[in-house]
Amino acid sequence: MNKPRYFKESLARLKPYEPHLVPYNIKLDANENPYPFPGSLLDEIFTKIGSKDFPLYPDPLSSRLRKKLAEKLGVLPENIVLGNGSDELILCLYLAFGGQGRTALGFSPSFVMFWHHAFVTQTEFREVPYRDDFSFDLKKALKTIEEQKPHLVFLANPNNPTGSLVDLKTIEKLLAFDHLLIVDEAYVEFSGVSAVELLKEYPNLVILRTFSKARALAGLRLGYLIANKEVIKEIIKVKNPYNVNIFSQIAGEVVLDNEEVFKEEIKEIIAEREKLFQQLIALGVRPVKSHANFILVEFGERAKTIHQELINQGILVRYLGGVLANYLRITVGTPEENRQLLKILEENL
Amino acid sequence: MNKPRYFKESLARLKPYEPHLVPYNIKLDANENPYPFPGSLLDEIFTKIGSKDFPLYPDPLSSRLRKKLAEKLGVLPENIVLGNGSDELILCLYLAFGGQGRTALGFSPSFVMFWHHAFVTQTEFREVPYRDDFSFDLKKALKTIEEQKPHLVFLANPNNPTGSLVDLKTIEKLLAFDHLLIVDEAYVEFSGVSAVELLKEYPNLVILRTFSKARALAGLRLGYLIANKEVIKEIIKVKNPYNVNIFSQIAGEVVLDNEEVFKEEIKEIIAEREKLFQQLIALGVRPVKSHANFILVEFGERAKTIHQELINQGILVRYLGGVLANYLRITVGTPEENRQLLKILEENL
Repeated sequence: MNKPRYFKESLARLKPYEPHLVPYNIKLDANENPYPFPGSLLDEIFTKIGSKDFPLYPDPLSSRLRKKLAEKLGVLPENIVLGNGSDELILCLYLAFGGQGRTALGFSPSFVMFWHHAFVTQTEFREVPYRDDFSFDLKKALKTIEEQKPHLVFLANPNNPTGSLVDLKTIEKLLAFDHLLIVDEAYVEFSGVSAVELLKEYPNLVILRTFSKARALAGLRLGYLIANKEVIKEIIKVKNPYNVNIFSQIAGEVVLDNEEVFKEEIKEIIAEREKLFQQLIALGVRPVKSHANFILVEFGERAKTIHQELINQGILVRYLGGVLANYLRITVGTPEENRQLLKILEENL
Repeated sequence: MNKPRYFKESLARLKPYEPHLVPYNIKLDANENPYPFPGSLLDEIFTKIGSKDFPLYPDPLSSRLRKKLAEKLGVLPENIVLGNGSDELILCLYLAFGGQGRTALGFSPSFVMFWHHAFVTQTEFREVPYRDDFSFDLKKALKTIEEQKPHLVFLANPNNPTGSLVDLKTIEKLLAFDHLLIVDEAYVEFSGVSAVELLKEYPNLVILRTFSKARALAGLRLGYLIANKEVIKEIIKVKNPYNVNIFSQIAGEVVLDNEEVFKEEIKEIIAEREKLFQQLIALGVRPVKSHANFILVEFGERAKTIHQELINQGILVRYLGGVLANYLRITVGTPEENRQLLKILEENL
C-alpha cells in the first residue's frame, strides 16, 4: 500500500515504542531509585503548590530552581537550562546544533536517546565501539573524531548500560576539538566523578544531569544542562517555551532543599552495588565493574532465558540484545530486592 | 567575533525568549482560565498520587488518560497521543512530517508555535494572510495550497490571536489534498465547533487539543492530538518516550472525571466575553468578534501606549506588534477583572 506523500520514508524503519506491561514484584529494569520518594518531601511539595498555580503557564526558565542549582554547582543561572527530563535536552541539542548535513558521534553501546534523536533530526550518527571489556578506547575515539569531524560528541559518564567510567584527563582530550562534547552525568551521584570543574576552561563542554536517578523523580521528568552561556542561549531558542511544568519545578526545589535525605540512599545503593557485584561473581556469572546504580552482567547464551525466568518470578531486569545478547542489565535494588534476585538467579543457574 | 563551527548560522536571527516579569494584579495576557483550579479536584489528585509514583518512569502512552479521552471523544485510544502541552505535539508533527525539503503552510496572524517549530526543524513555512477583517480567505488558501503543495497545513480554529472561526465545510475543502491538515482546537470549549466528526472520513486530519485553557491546567502542560492511527504511530516514533509526567497524567484523569465543574466556568466566560464585547464597543474601540476566551481589540495608534498604561495599573494584556500594532489581545477574565479593566480603559481613552 502506498502511503500518502506526507509520510516520511526515513521514519518507515523506526518502530513506535510499544510498552508491554508485565506484572512484577521487583523492578530492576530502568535504573530507578528503589526507595519511595520521601513522604515528608511530598508533603512539602503539596504545601507549596496551590489552586492558583495550575491555571497559569509555568515560568519558562524555571528561574527559582535554576538559581538554586547554580548556587549548588558554583555556576551562574545563565549556565543552566532545565528540561522535561534530559531526553528533551538531548533533542534540543540536536535541534540547536545538529540536523541535516551535520554529524554526531557516540560510543557504543550507550544510551539509546543519543542515537534516537540524531535519527529523528536527520543528523548523521557515527559510533565508536567500547573495547570488548567495555573500557573506553581513547585512541580510536580521537582517530574517528579527526576523520569524521563531528559537530556533537555524546559521552555518558558513567556509561549506560555498561557502568564504565572515564577520567577527566580523557574528557579533556575529547574537548580539544571544535565540536560540542556532551557529557551525560545521569549517574554522577554513584560515581563521584564530574566534569563540572572543566566548564570554566572549555566553552565547548556540555553537561547533562537528571533528577530521575538518585533524586527519585523519574516520574516528574526533570533534567538540566550546564554549559557556556552562548550554548544555553541556543537551547533556549529551540526549546518549547513552557517545557517544565510547575509541579516538577517546585518538586525540584524541594529536593535541592533536602539533599541530605538522598545522600543516605546513595551511600546505601553504592554499598549494595559492591555487595551485589561480589555475590554475582560468587554465583559464577561475570558482572562488569560499575560506577552507576546498575550492573551489566554476562550470563552467556542463557541470558535471554534467564531474563524470561526472572519475569516469570516477578523480577524485571533489562535484556538489551544486539552486541549485548549475552548480558542483562540489573538495577541495584534495596537489600531485600537484591536478596530475592540472587535467590532466583541461584535457582536458575 | 567568529563563532565555533558547531553553532548554526540559521539560528543566529532567532532571539532566545527572555521573560520580563512585571508585577501585576490582573493577568489577561495568556488566555488562561481566570478561575483557580478547583480545590476539591486538587485534593483528589493529591490523594491519587503517592511516594511510590515519583521514582518510577511514567507510562509512556498515558494509557489510562488516553482511554478516558477516547471514550469521551468516541474514538479509539490508538487515535490519541498525549503531549507535554500541545507545543510539544506541534514539534513532533514537524519532526515526523516536516524537516528540510518539506513545506508547511499557515495563516497569518496565528499561533506563533506553528512558525517557530517550522523554523527550528528547518521546514519551509508559507503564510496566507487572513482578510483585513480577520475572516478566512478560502479562495486564497486553496490557490496557495495548489501552488505550494505543502506537506502540512496548520489552522487554529478558533484562531489565536483573532478569535475568528471557520466552519466544517471550509475545513473539508482544506482536507481535499494530499497533505496533513492540523486543526488546533485549543479554544474549542468556547466555540462549540469541532472537526472531530470529520476524523472518520479524512485520514489526513489531525486535531490538537489542550488542558491549558478551559481545563485550567496550563501549569501542568497537557495537550493531546487526535488523528488516524497511522499518523499517531509516526508521532509516537519521534516523541520522547516519557514525555508526559505522572502528576499531569493523573491530573488529566481527575479533570475528565469532573468535567461538570468546568462547564459552569466555560458558560460564565462565554457570557462575559459577549458582555465585554459590547462594553468595548460602547467605549468606542473596535473589538473583533471572538469565538474563544479572548478578544482582539483595535485601539488605533494608541494601542502600545494603552498597553503600557494597563501594565502601570497592574493589568497585563498582550501587545503583539507587527501587523497587529494597533491591537491588543485581551483575555476574558472574571466579571470583577473585566470590570476593573474597563474602568482603566475608560480613564485612558
